[in-house]
Amino acid sequence: MAGAVENRTAAIVGTGVIGGGWAARFLLHGWDVNCYDPDPEAERKLPQLLANARRSLPGLFDVEMPREGQLRMCHSVDAAVAEADWIQESVPERLDLKREVLAHIQRSAPARAVLGSSTSGFRPSELAADANNPGQILVCHPFHPVYLLPLVEVVPHERQDADVLASAQRILRELGMKPLLLRKEIDAHIADRLLEAVWREALWLVRDGFATTAEIDDAIRFGFGLRWAQMGLFETYRIAGGEEGMAHFLEQFGPCLNWPWSRLTDVPELTEELIGRIAEQSDQQSGRYSLNELERIRDCNLVTILRALKAQNWGAGQLLREQDRRLSANPEQGTAQGEYEQPIVTVSRAVPLDWTDYNGHMTESRYLEIFGDGTDRFMNIIGCDAQYIAGGSSFFTVETHIRHIKEVHAGSRVRVSTQCLLGEGRKMQLFHWLQREDGQLLATAEHMLVHVSLATRRASQPAAPLADRLAKIASLHARLPMPEGVGSAIGLR
Amino acid sequence: MAGAVENRTAAIVGTGVIGGGWAARFLLHGWDVNCYDPDPEAERKLPQLLANARRSLPGLFDVEMPREGQLRMCHSVDAAVAEADWIQESVPERLDLKREVLAHIQRSAPARAVLGSSTSGFRPSELAADANNPGQILVCHPFHPVYLLPLVEVVPHERQDADVLASAQRILRELGMKPLLLRKEIDAHIADRLLEAVWREALWLVRDGFATTAEIDDAIRFGFGLRWAQMGLFETYRIAGGEEGMAHFLEQFGPCLNWPWSRLTDVPELTEELIGRIAEQSDQQSGRYSLNELERIRDCNLVTILRALKAQNWGAGQLLREQDRRLSANPEQGTAQGEYEQPIVTVSRAVPLDWTDYNGHMTESRYLEIFGDGTDRFMNIIGCDAQYIAGGSSFFTVETHIRHIKEVHAGSRVRVSTQCLLGEGRKMQLFHWLQREDGQLLATAEHMLVHVSLATRRASQPAAPLADRLAKIASLHARLPMPEGVGSAIGLR
Repeated sequence: MAGAVENRTAAIVGTGVIGGGWAARFLLHGWDVNCYDPDPEAERKLPQLLANARRSLPGLFDVEMPREGQLRMCHSVDAAVAEADWIQESVPERLDLKREVLAHIQRSAPARAVLGSSTSGFRPSELAADANNPGQILVCHPFHPVYLLPLVEVVPHERQDADVLASAQRILRELGMKPLLLRKEIDAHIADRLLEAVWREALWLVRDGFATTAEIDDAIRFGFGLRWAQMGLFETYRIAGGEEGMAHFLEQFGPCLNWPWSRLTDVPELTEELIGRIAEQSDQQSGRYSLNELERIRDCNLVTILRALKAQNWGAGQLLREQDRRLSANPEQGTAQGEYEQPIVTVSRAVPLDWTDYNGHMTESRYLEIFGDGTDRFMNIIGCDAQYIAGGSSFFTVETHIRHIKEVHAGSRVRVSTQCLLGEGRKMQLFHWLQREDGQLLATAEHMLVHVSLATRRASQPAAPLADRLAKIASLHARLPMPEGVGSAIGLR
Repeated sequence: MAGAVENRTAAIVGTGVIGGGWAARFLLHGWDVNCYDPDPEAERKLPQLLANARRSLPGLFDVEMPREGQLRMCHSVDAAVAEADWIQESVPERLDLKREVLAHIQRSAPARAVLGSSTSGFRPSELAADANNPGQILVCHPFHPVYLLPLVEVVPHERQDADVLASAQRILRELGMKPLLLRKEIDAHIADRLLEAVWREALWLVRDGFATTAEIDDAIRFGFGLRWAQMGLFETYRIAGGEEGMAHFLEQFGPCLNWPWSRLTDVPELTEELIGRIAEQSDQQSGRYSLNELERIRDCNLVTILRALKAQNWGAGQLLREQDRRLSANPEQGTAQGEYEQPIVTVSRAVPLDWTDYNGHMTESRYLEIFGDGTDRFMNIIGCDAQYIAGGSSFFTVETHIRHIKEVHAGSRVRVSTQCLLGEGRKMQLFHWLQREDGQLLATAEHMLVHVSLATRRASQPAAPLADRLAKIASLHARLPMPEGVGSAIGLR
């Protein structure tokens, strides 16, 4: 690995849940990461967080991830930031402390590096007020867990360097994130203002005994929380407004704002009694799980929700597809034209968390899914792509034969290699091997496909350029040995 | 269908988006539904809503749904409610109107029926204040779309009939919903208070030009909205608090409440200018989709999110599993003991929305998934259930052969029938047919399974009672004709 590619370096100053999440996201996207945290516990906590990230992040994507970068624990801010391309400050939420740390960072940091602050509340002009190089500092406010949630609020200020701002947004997109550029700075940016409003109302409900923490959580996750994972507030209300549209909705529901339910906008006092009550209710609600169990449950849920949205090509799931395309543009990815003397690597990816059962093994139907992905990629290679299919033809699978040889776990890197056994007339026969990164054979599949007209749903002859490309690969692959197990029937071997 | 089972009847008074959603949920769970709405457009709008519900709701479940009930459009409140077991009022949000309609309903309604109001804001004691039979009235506040979102806030009042309250909660659970019983009544219940807090803050952000409607929606759906689909506010913050726990989190973040960001708790005035701005931004954000397109996109997203959570057995997904168990208890479901002279119906279900591609066809890997479900059910029948597996043994699939014969669309009712071809020693060979409700063959699958010890991951002999039950079914099925296509290899037929 040494020196093959010049890796970029991220410096993470403060490696708690937020900083550690940043470290994981950079690392798993191929960046080298230098960490600094004065907490003696940091070196114990970070690996656990990274383990959770390795288990959940790579499988979000349906293509190969870059090779993980190198992690270095540093013993000073200066050592961490000296050669960094991105520096992320995630120290506790105190303005004096943040200013002091930013000043320290700027003494050693390259002048062109992005210097992002994870602050939830402060405005960038406050952070950069006395800075030597204010143009370098901006707010990049992420959401916990940073390695899974895509949102980053990017908040520039009046003295912002335009190149730094542009680099920051570009790099965040490269990390698969969603930079939301704020038009002007405001305390607590956007999302935390919305969260704070809910939090204040929730505290009243608990304080006045109308609901417990568990009941409030249920009111969210069985109701509007499901809506908000895919459409936000306004798009949801647009639909609720029905055919009459948004203005009608506003006129109809506007008056509610002046109802009695708007009265409770004071700030409830966080007395010891209230803190104790919330902590106790929270123990009752979630205390049967350890923190790490809760984190893993949450990550499984988030991965499956994100991948569910990916299947629909919507919102945060659409972003994952864009990231797949970005990762595929990596020259290490895919097979070059003309290299078809061997079986073709048609899939190379990590097993995602939503493909595994409660034992952590890949579930049966996902074998067919990954083999299907291999078939899709092969079709693409011969020219049966979205454009060809839009033209009214495609291949349909008529028969599949899978042999399950070895189990595989979430997070494992696997690949599918594909040999074309037959490619003439309307027929295409493919043989796939599913292997672990280390070469261990996991399963094989044999597929018979037929070229069909999508209009008549009947078998048809493929168009000339496709037929030629298929025939060419089929003739090259005919020189390969016949794979073990081809054409064998169940119970007849 | 006539008279075979005495169906229960729901009366829906007001059939807009909320009332129509109630109608769909009752209908698809086998209730007869009487609708009344004075709007001349109601008979045009309702079928469209029902079509969306039929496409999305039944596939949430992995078992057979009851047969759909009968829908009747009534020309008076009296005709609709006269014989109803549940009456749901969903008229516009005006206290005088709701009281008048409730009084009208009570003139004809059976005294023991549940009379639920969908009010978002009023307290049940306000609704029941002058009622003839106040004990019958309670708030059952659902969330849009009612046919998919499980939450119902159930709010009783001081003069509540205890039997009505108990029936209401029981019936809502039968409908697959999550009744959240409020401890005491409060304006706008729980969820709408939280929503109203966010709404108010969002209006300020738009009014003051800090964000557009699309930016606010992105701040939600790329960030905390994803969290809230599975854990709520408190459980999420419990994790964010890290190892130090909830009280620590509160002490750390408590001060934020008194920061400047809490200032904007006044009510922004909904001027024409602000209404116009929001409507325009919303058009820019979502206007490229028609209302029905948006509804269908939303339903696809919600179904996939809900089923993603179901795979994780968490939150709203756990509720779906409970509903599967409830629906399976239906005596029409499953095969009785001893009826094994024919292939066994091992799956009977609707094709869910998340199983289909952009053409609306079931994707390839889902064929293996539904056949795998058939295998699981067969294993269950012979006694290889959760308890047996927890004891350290199970069957693993070593080989699969699928023939794809015909396509199938989301919402179609399908069934898998299973013939045991071999059941002796460590081997079990199964043949499945996937058929549409009308008998059309869609695909077949042949599986070879091996009984394994989960400790050694090696083949092992099954325990005696299981081996006996398997042998018995295998010998009965040996008298059946060998299915067409058994043991055939790809390309060798």
